[in-house]
Amino acid sequence: MRDIVIAGIGSTSFGQHPNISARELSAKATAEAIYDSGLLSKQIGALYLGNFISGPLSGQEVLAGLVSNELGLGSIPATKVEGACASGGIAFRHACLAVSSGMTDAAIAVGVEKMSHAKGKEVTSALNCAMDNDADAPSGLTFPGLFGLVWRGYAEAFGATRDQVSSVVCKNKSAGLKNPLAHMGANLTNEEISAGAMIASPIRIHDCCPVSDGAAAVVVARADIVDKNKDAISVLASVQTSGSPRIAGHKNIYSFDATVKASEKAFNIAGIGTKDLSLVELHDCFSIAEIIDSEDLGIVPRGEGAAWAFEGRTNIDGDIPINPSGGLLSKGHPVGATGVGQIFEACLQLRGKHSNQVKDARFAMTHNLGGAGVACTVSI
Amino acid sequence: MRDIVIAGIGSTSFGQHPNISARELSAKATAEAIYDSGLLSKQIGALYLGNFISGPLSGQEVLAGLVSNELGLGSIPATKVEGACASGGIAFRHACLAVSSGMTDAAIAVGVEKMSHAKGKEVTSALNCAMDNDADAPSGLTFPGLFGLVWRGYAEAFGATRDQVSSVVCKNKSAGLKNPLAHMGANLTNEEISAGAMIASPIRIHDCCPVSDGAAAVVVARADIVDKNKDAISVLASVQTSGSPRIAGHKNIYSFDATVKASEKAFNIAGIGTKDLSLVELHDCFSIAEIIDSEDLGIVPRGEGAAWAFEGRTNIDGDIPINPSGGLLSKGHPVGATGVGQIFEACLQLRGKHSNQVKDARFAMTHNLGGAGVACTVSI
Repeated sequence: MRDIVIAGIGSTSFGQHPNISARELSAKATAEAIYDSGLLSKQIGALYLGNFISGPLSGQEVLAGLVSNELGLGSIPATKVEGACASGGIAFRHACLAVSSGMTDAAIAVGVEKMSHAKGKEVTSALNCAMDNDADAPSGLTFPGLFGLVWRGYAEAFGATRDQVSSVVCKNKSAGLKNPLAHMGANLTNEEISAGAMIASPIRIHDCCPVSDGAAAVVVARADIVDKNKDAISVLASVQTSGSPRIAGHKNIYSFDATVKASEKAFNIAGIGTKDLSLVELHDCFSIAEIIDSEDLGIVPRGEGAAWAFEGRTNIDGDIPINPSGGLLSKGHPVGATGVGQIFEACLQLRGKHSNQVKDARFAMTHNLGGAGVACTVSI
Repeated sequence: MRDIVIAGIGSTSFGQHPNISARELSAKATAEAIYDSGLLSKQIGALYLGNFISGPLSGQEVLAGLVSNELGLGSIPATKVEGACASGGIAFRHACLAVSSGMTDAAIAVGVEKMSHAKGKEVTSALNCAMDNDADAPSGLTFPGLFGLVWRGYAEAFGATRDQVSSVVCKNKSAGLKNPLAHMGANLTNEEISAGAMIASPIRIHDCCPVSDGAAAVVVARADIVDKNKDAISVLASVQTSGSPRIAGHKNIYSFDATVKASEKAFNIAGIGTKDLSLVELHDCFSIAEIIDSEDLGIVPRGEGAAWAFEGRTNIDGDIPINPSGGLLSKGHPVGATGVGQIFEACLQLRGKHSNQVKDARFAMTHNLGGAGVACTVSI
């Protein structure tokens, strides 16, 4: 892989954007990223757009072409990629591949989702497109249900308590207060979290990421074409894996093999170890997911994720800061946008310009997970 | 681009498959392609799946992961790509890129769509996801309507007659009779075609491709890992472009710029000219589209497509055989599958084993077009 960098970044706020389409959200974030990169539009040779459910929820596909056209990028190949909640991460990886393979000198990865206009039932039904519906739909399972089972499996294996898991909620929701692009933020007590509406036992309302609209974009480029005065961020590894799409396909319900494999490979390619990481932005679609992911990524020992969270070891000043952006729990989860949004947050950190800045941030990892572990990307 | 070949091919029949899911159709075609290639599953390092509307019509996304898992391909990256009706061609191009860039020694491209289970109204509405709905939906336009306008524009510019356009229908529908995988086939007279039900004037029923289910797959590999006794087909060029997604974005309604640019680039990369082509499988979603496409590809002079069709110059024994498979008009158009299905047909021709064999076939071109010209792939 030749030397590639993230030359520019852009993001809309994540939240409710009732009067702006997915195309416009994407174009806004992308234009910002191109401007930030200092490159010219004509230097961009490919566009990858991560999106999950614009078809079912908005009756609009071909979003990659719509966005490329909106931005006047000419006849460059514009491709939508989809891997459920990992769609954004997959878009980023393909922009990296396009540049590292020499196909083009610069490429855009943009992720977008527009969800808040739809009724709750429609959103749940659309999100279930990420499941293996032949295998798991007959049980009536939804994603809160799935992660409720994950929590129960984890608690049974390792004895995690409600208060331990609540530490993740407290940490991420309070971080959201300081992130101007986050959908929400709050200072919550364990009592408030435990009194939240039950969604799918033991998952309560504050354990869930909100339903959000938003877009994020980055420009990936050959290192040598980017102005030396720009804060370009090196890409050391961008890995994509797949795993079982169904519950019964996982050896343990509290571990997603796609994450384990992607992380191992990413560390290997990047040539660094867990101790080198300054921070991790990972896929906390539910509070329990942050704990599971932190173990699957190998940054917290198996079975100790809940304790680490409780002891503050994943706080911004802890052993390994996890989700200093507020994560999906605060930022929201505009599905296709999330993976690129994580890259955006990591770049702000590595530039030293984040509103929740991790001190001396040098290496950041991002982790984007799709469906019931069917698709995963990890980047360093 | 290093030397890459199509090592194996597989396809289900195109038509109605009421009792088999998109995942199963894909797995069937892919298993056939892997077997045909003589390669081992473990040599496959990436899977690209072209699909357009499995979300809206079947409530199932993450198809790439589902298919990879079904075939036991391990944790390889499995990515759905979408560019409306060009989704299959885009999958093929990405499998080529994965191999030519050195990312893997072999990759799968599979295309699939399942449509026939849905009601006509649902299908029309899902297909309209391929339009620029902000710009063109308010007019009530559908794809037959769009190509009706294309026909009118073309006829006004070049004076094409109903009987000239009917030549395309006669040629392709009769070819379908000889293609065992085609959805339909018929020997039709001009009178029968002219008496067909009006769909969107001047487009009548026989001018339209049918709504079909089906999947097709190919294995793309480094030339040097494929058994010399296999009929491997060299890939000289695989190009993807984008164009305006909306009607008003085209200079002339009877020409799609994405096709023009993709064809020019493909000929350039392949280092051959139109005269070298033995056959073309192109995107005849409607009869008039074949005429337009043949001109946009540069294989028939502008304004002479209708006359060439009428004079039999695009017949199997003509100057340039177009759609000897029967094209979309006979094979059907399971949207995501079409682009890969064209590659399948072209490979059979180049192996000399097609049921409608073009004599001494040496170079074949395939052309896959999405939406109102928003995405295009051309391969040689």
